[in-house]
Amino acid sequence: MIIQPVVNVAEICAQKGVKNVILSPGSRCAPLTIAFARHKAFLVRTVSDERAAAFIALGLALTTGQPTVLICTSGTAALNYAPAVAEAFFQQVPLLILTADRPPEWIDQLDGQTIRQQNVFGQHIKSSYTFPVDFSTPDAVWHSERMVSEALNEAMAFPGGPVHINVPLREPFYPSPGEPVKFDNKVKIIAEEESAYMMSPQLSLKLQEEILRHRKVLVVAGQQTYDPHLLQSLHAFAESTGAVIVGDVISNIQELPAVVRHQDVFLSCPNAEKLKQLQPDLLITFGKSVISKSLKLYLRNYKPNTHWHVQPAGQVADTFQALTKIIRCSATSLFSGLTGSTKTDAAYVRAWRGMDKKAGNFLSAYTADSGYHELAVVARFFKQLPHKSNLHLANSMSVRYANILALQPDQEVEVFANRGTSGIDGSTSTAVGCALASSKITTLLTGDLAFFYDRNGLWHNYLPQNLRIVLLNNHAGGIFRLIDGPRQQPELEPFFETEQALNAENTARDFNLHYVAVRNINELEKALPGFLSTDTGAGIMEIFTNSSSNAAAFDKYRQAVRSIEF
Amino acid sequence: MIIQPVVNVAEICAQKGVKNVILSPGSRCAPLTIAFARHKAFLVRTVSDERAAAFIALGLALTTGQPTVLICTSGTAALNYAPAVAEAFFQQVPLLILTADRPPEWIDQLDGQTIRQQNVFGQHIKSSYTFPVDFSTPDAVWHSERMVSEALNEAMAFPGGPVHINVPLREPFYPSPGEPVKFDNKVKIIAEEESAYMMSPQLSLKLQEEILRHRKVLVVAGQQTYDPHLLQSLHAFAESTGAVIVGDVISNIQELPAVVRHQDVFLSCPNAEKLKQLQPDLLITFGKSVISKSLKLYLRNYKPNTHWHVQPAGQVADTFQALTKIIRCSATSLFSGLTGSTKTDAAYVRAWRGMDKKAGNFLSAYTADSGYHELAVVARFFKQLPHKSNLHLANSMSVRYANILALQPDQEVEVFANRGTSGIDGSTSTAVGCALASSKITTLLTGDLAFFYDRNGLWHNYLPQNLRIVLLNNHAGGIFRLIDGPRQQPELEPFFETEQALNAENTARDFNLHYVAVRNINELEKALPGFLSTDTGAGIMEIFTNSSSNAAAFDKYRQAVRSIEF
Repeated sequence: MIIQPVVNVAEICAQKGVKNVILSPGSRCAPLTIAFARHKAFLVRTVSDERAAAFIALGLALTTGQPTVLICTSGTAALNYAPAVAEAFFQQVPLLILTADRPPEWIDQLDGQTIRQQNVFGQHIKSSYTFPVDFSTPDAVWHSERMVSEALNEAMAFPGGPVHINVPLREPFYPSPGEPVKFDNKVKIIAEEESAYMMSPQLSLKLQEEILRHRKVLVVAGQQTYDPHLLQSLHAFAESTGAVIVGDVISNIQELPAVVRHQDVFLSCPNAEKLKQLQPDLLITFGKSVISKSLKLYLRNYKPNTHWHVQPAGQVADTFQALTKIIRCSATSLFSGLTGSTKTDAAYVRAWRGMDKKAGNFLSAYTADSGYHELAVVARFFKQLPHKSNLHLANSMSVRYANILALQPDQEVEVFANRGTSGIDGSTSTAVGCALASSKITTLLTGDLAFFYDRNGLWHNYLPQNLRIVLLNNHAGGIFRLIDGPRQQPELEPFFETEQALNAENTARDFNLHYVAVRNINELEKALPGFLSTDTGAGIMEIFTNSSSNAAAFDKYRQAVRSIEF
Repeated sequence: MIIQPVVNVAEICAQKGVKNVILSPGSRCAPLTIAFARHKAFLVRTVSDERAAAFIALGLALTTGQPTVLICTSGTAALNYAPAVAEAFFQQVPLLILTADRPPEWIDQLDGQTIRQQNVFGQHIKSSYTFPVDFSTPDAVWHSERMVSEALNEAMAFPGGPVHINVPLREPFYPSPGEPVKFDNKVKIIAEEESAYMMSPQLSLKLQEEILRHRKVLVVAGQQTYDPHLLQSLHAFAESTGAVIVGDVISNIQELPAVVRHQDVFLSCPNAEKLKQLQPDLLITFGKSVISKSLKLYLRNYKPNTHWHVQPAGQVADTFQALTKIIRCSATSLFSGLTGSTKTDAAYVRAWRGMDKKAGNFLSAYTADSGYHELAVVARFFKQLPHKSNLHLANSMSVRYANILALQPDQEVEVFANRGTSGIDGSTSTAVGCALASSKITTLLTGDLAFFYDRNGLWHNYLPQNLRIVLLNNHAGGIFRLIDGPRQQPELEPFFETEQALNAENTARDFNLHYVAVRNINELEKALPGFLSTDTGAGIMEIFTNSSSNAAAFDKYRQAVRSIEF
């Protein structure tokens, strides 16, 4: 039987611009599957493991800026979405999740694949809806149509995020043989025109006055998607005011030459006098999380007098325990409005620039000479990163190495990382989603635990040829040997590092991926250009290192940093 | 720094009899990891993928009847537990989940691996607790100790289930080098002595009177763990009253010779007159879910006048839309109390027994002669199942084939299946958990989608040598070709069946598993005895079939059933 309001969910999504649909097979969700599969507006892909499916959807939404629709059957399918839904919630990525469910009278009656699906995503969803189950009044149809518009509007409204419609379905839910599925293009739509989140002229004047009281202005960018307008206004602001701009590798502002990028290195320097010189009067922040632990600890210890955070809407974190003012506009609008408003103290600028330059020089020399270990490997890999490519950084050490080393302005690499929740659970799938939505080479830098954890991100029939996986395999959770707490415990090897024996050769064979193994610097240098070239096709470069050697080299790195004369 | 109340969580668990701990590596959970790792009472294992970790914990708890402790770090780790937690909730299996968390002041402040963990398991947990974060008063220590007792008592109280303690932890949380971890064996414990859930003499008399009004008494067992006391009382009841006892393969009562076991076959017979003869006056049920769809539909169509469900405590489902009385005692107590209480109509008994026998004979003949397809394969495999072994049935077709074919009384095979939520997501991990806790050969019967979905159930350093995996690989979700709705849709192949290309040979290589591939009946018959013998060690038998041939054979099977002269 055709349930027209369910068919119309697809039509409303189409009219509101949705393109990508990831579904996982199931019977209860058949009416949704059939509606989306038969509509010409969508690119529908099937991924069996719902955990991977949801992270792939996240990658698609991150790259396109548009909501991905996720469809699954009833039962624990929805629970397998939960890690990606939480990541989407905190990374503010739009997803529309459609979960099929049994009708209310059959919940808790011991039928198969039946759980308690209403509000199943708890506190990690922007909005949750329950689709009507009876359409005996026209109001129910209006309700169902309104709900889809509302959900998509909510997913896109700043800050974006995942929304969930639970869809209870009574049998029969398959069309009879030959029964046609017709999309009603007169379906009711509620469009939503977004605010530009512009600063008012009054606020602009007020902040111009306030900023003049500060001679040491520091801007810190949190995680952001790549935004050319923002880059432009930030550049103009920095040029005209001399303000110091600091950006982690996930901030997507390292393309600006003036950006300070080695803060994670030099802010761990033990010279209190030098550090004092860097303390801001006014800190301006925008974006989401910051990776650099040195930067976080530095700003918590050397607090600014004033901390403005710019964010159009939504809850604001007090990351540095120093927040004094929330400014509700876009960062682009703020920096445009403050261009030329003040002049930063020249000595202050010199102090930041000087330390950043020394740290950069130190890193170049250290990674060139210190032998074969992960930090050196990532440095070599970074030098060969294709121009204007995408880089996905898995959590744990991959993103930390990348943040220490930083990108160069001329590389124009767009950076993705699941820093909403910082889990290792979906990096591969998210990178696959990014690669599917982009024509650029998309490289995932990952460790062995993150890679094998999410191996099912490769288990489907859509592996994109522009995907490259650079896998740092030290056969363990190497991070635990690099941080002080666990490595001093007798439990280090069995219960923190957790030695794992896998390498990726069989996985590459399973998924028809090009495979290259690397065991020293020469092999790495030799293999990288071919591996990263557009002709090679999807592949895995597995770089074997030893966890103890990495730890020894990282210790040396930290000692060397402490002895730099900044 | 040692946080003594956290150390004492381990001590309380030890004193309350917990043995098995599954932890997943993380830094925030270090105080828990160290406390459990250093305590001599526990067998601690590390599993990196939290989804698999939780299902392995479930398998351990299912097999031992005791709670498994699960420990993970903060962030999405807990969300990866969610599918297994829901399964444990509906299958009523005790788990104690300890999730490390940041302290409350750091939630939503953009720190890494920080989500909203309080009540993160929503409606699929028996109880949720928040561990104290400050211990400046003795009351906080009392609270922390009481909480662990309460949680474990709650996990075990009928109906058992998962409980969650969220443990916020402030740095520093690693012991200083050399700082000793001491367990306080004077820690406060609240023991709980369980009720025997005995029927009172008054109730016994009352029910003995009531049962006399019914001459057609039918007992249907839902999913149950293996229970020799129950088998004994059920046997005595059946012998003395002649009541018809029906049990699916997951009921663990097929060891009783009198049990009707082919209901899924003969209740789909189209002969209304024959079916009418089977209609009960009084239906007595116990246990959890029933697999057989024919049985469910039959009892919903041919409702008993009276339906008693026996369950000591907790919510009761009205599976057949016929429930009239809930009896609060154990099934063992009820059947003991009603032994000899009535005499079932002889013609009624003959009708059930006769149809069951004909269905059994038909199945033997059909699976012997109908060629190479999954139903025949499973029948051959069942004949070779080691005596007194464990059998774990994955969801989708594996458990359905098994239920059609049924076990024989002399096999004494204990059956496990994740029928709480009927997901395919954790069957391999659960079977691994069962195998780890048992000395018996433990065989998992699974399909390719379920197997590769949960491949990470094999990704750890504890693969038990008594594990055997019988993998029915038809390179797709074959079930969708067997049910009427989807196979009539043009979306069948891309969006329901979801062809998948993997076979398990590389997986076997990855995990050092014995591997044998089977492509016809002869190979199967030749390989089975060796594969299932105790000497062979852990292995995968991959049985390749064709999804279309399976569907054709299953169609023939259904036609043949319809034409049996019952």
